[in-house]
Amino acid sequence: MNSEKNNFVEEIHRNHFSIRYKIKEKLFEGQSDFQKVEVVETLGYGRMLLNDSLVMVTEKDEFIYHDMISHVPLFVHPNPKKVLIVGGGDGGTAREVLRHSSVESVVMVEIDKMVVDACREFIPQTSKELANPKLTLLIEDGVKYMKESSDTFDVIIIDSTDPIGPATPLFGEEFYKNVYARLSDNGIVVAQGESPFYEEVMQKKLLIIVSNIFPLRTYYNFNNMTYPGGLWSFLFASKGRHPIKDFQANRIEQSGLDFNYYNSEIHKGCFSLPQFMVNNLKELIQI
Amino acid sequence: MNSEKNNFVEEIHRNHFSIRYKIKEKLFEGQSDFQKVEVVETLGYGRMLLNDSLVMVTEKDEFIYHDMISHVPLFVHPNPKKVLIVGGGDGGTAREVLRHSSVESVVMVEIDKMVVDACREFIPQTSKELANPKLTLLIEDGVKYMKESSDTFDVIIIDSTDPIGPATPLFGEEFYKNVYARLSDNGIVVAQGESPFYEEVMQKKLLIIVSNIFPLRTYYNFNNMTYPGGLWSFLFASKGRHPIKDFQANRIEQSGLDFNYYNSEIHKGCFSLPQFMVNNLKELIQI
Repeated sequence: MNSEKNNFVEEIHRNHFSIRYKIKEKLFEGQSDFQKVEVVETLGYGRMLLNDSLVMVTEKDEFIYHDMISHVPLFVHPNPKKVLIVGGGDGGTAREVLRHSSVESVVMVEIDKMVVDACREFIPQTSKELANPKLTLLIEDGVKYMKESSDTFDVIIIDSTDPIGPATPLFGEEFYKNVYARLSDNGIVVAQGESPFYEEVMQKKLLIIVSNIFPLRTYYNFNNMTYPGGLWSFLFASKGRHPIKDFQANRIEQSGLDFNYYNSEIHKGCFSLPQFMVNNLKELIQI
Repeated sequence: MNSEKNNFVEEIHRNHFSIRYKIKEKLFEGQSDFQKVEVVETLGYGRMLLNDSLVMVTEKDEFIYHDMISHVPLFVHPNPKKVLIVGGGDGGTAREVLRHSSVESVVMVEIDKMVVDACREFIPQTSKELANPKLTLLIEDGVKYMKESSDTFDVIIIDSTDPIGPATPLFGEEFYKNVYARLSDNGIVVAQGESPFYEEVMQKKLLIIVSNIFPLRTYYNFNNMTYPGGLWSFLFASKGRHPIKDFQANRIEQSGLDFNYYNSEIHKGCFSLPQFMVNNLKELIQI
């Protein structure tokens, strides 16, 4: 393990720029069947998980991503009991989902055991609820699970990496047809939706696929400190639940839960998209 | 002038991380009485202005900052005719303000002639409207101008750098008392308000100052691709105009203007603040 004061990890983006994070120590490094997995102790962001040298999670700002991927759909669904998470091996999404008292069971399907094990050992902040008895963790291919399962879920969360390598089929038509089949009548799916600045083509492609399957669909935005450009999106699609009209702000207060990013104003405001996104996607958005 | 393919500029942030942008060429470098001024041609962001090695403006994403600092207040004020800009030497804010047909005159007070000259020569995309006959450009200290001027303005825009070095007094009580005095009855001031992630203390300090002077005040957020963390704020304060209740969305359509970031949903949504900002500032926000 390195403890050099001038050590850093570097994420390189499209050969245009790179971000270097100073680290105190590398805690873990391994190569799974799917990707390189590293956990480092940074100077400014606490512990950090990287897959293939791309920042996935940091202790300092993971609350933002995990608030927005979980509480937005869970407060739109009228009574979410059964939740499916695909990916999310760090455990942060499961942690937030399990805070909802209506939730009776969570199935989590993560393809890469190395990510789960590394986070269990080195990032308890995100992984602690993986031991929750309401959670069933399956180390499996989420695409295969979605096709072969006969379970029904109220909310499905696709907490994936980028659409390159192992996560590519998670951005495809067959997968989303199976997601639709797995959802209950009031069902909602949200999915990691990339950067509006850098992935306009991919955002449009994904929304085309989803527009052929779901009657309601759009993106909502949030602000990650440690992703390139900061601005990031989640896809939102449902069988009928409207993300704003069917959102009752008083449910947040009634839940007794508190958050450091999410609140009712953010819930409503996050569906306001910058004009360049509207220009790219307007014929496909339906809410 | 360097033309090395592996050349880059590097912005270092709090010794935690740094961002490196690959450049094709350095177009200008100078040291004014106030700061180092550089203009470079980047690989991925077009031309870039840096002050003291901090990214100020890039051709690729400047539309975001300039949309949000100008069109939010100008569409809240009922009929903005006279606008004052302090700072903004690149010219982008003036460019956007001058697109409003109601605007009869713009006074721009920039302390650093080198910034203006470098942008006039190398970044015409932002500086082209500096030649507009409705604009009066004064190369002066904005703090001194605010104190000594007897002019009245409908909207004042503080388009400053960070509160270190020459811009420090622009974040002070005496300055804001003078801003209040320079504003007409429906007057609105907006000011560069830093990162909510990194400058919680400064955001609170500024809002304390403003809360003792203006009856309405808050922050609104936007997303810069090239500032650390991406999420950034503008201060909004007024003598009575409410940023959302007094915003009429149809004025955007009536104006005939189009934008790549700003729109009516973004206008309303940008005043939704993440919970950590609300926790930091709620006793001071008044809208």
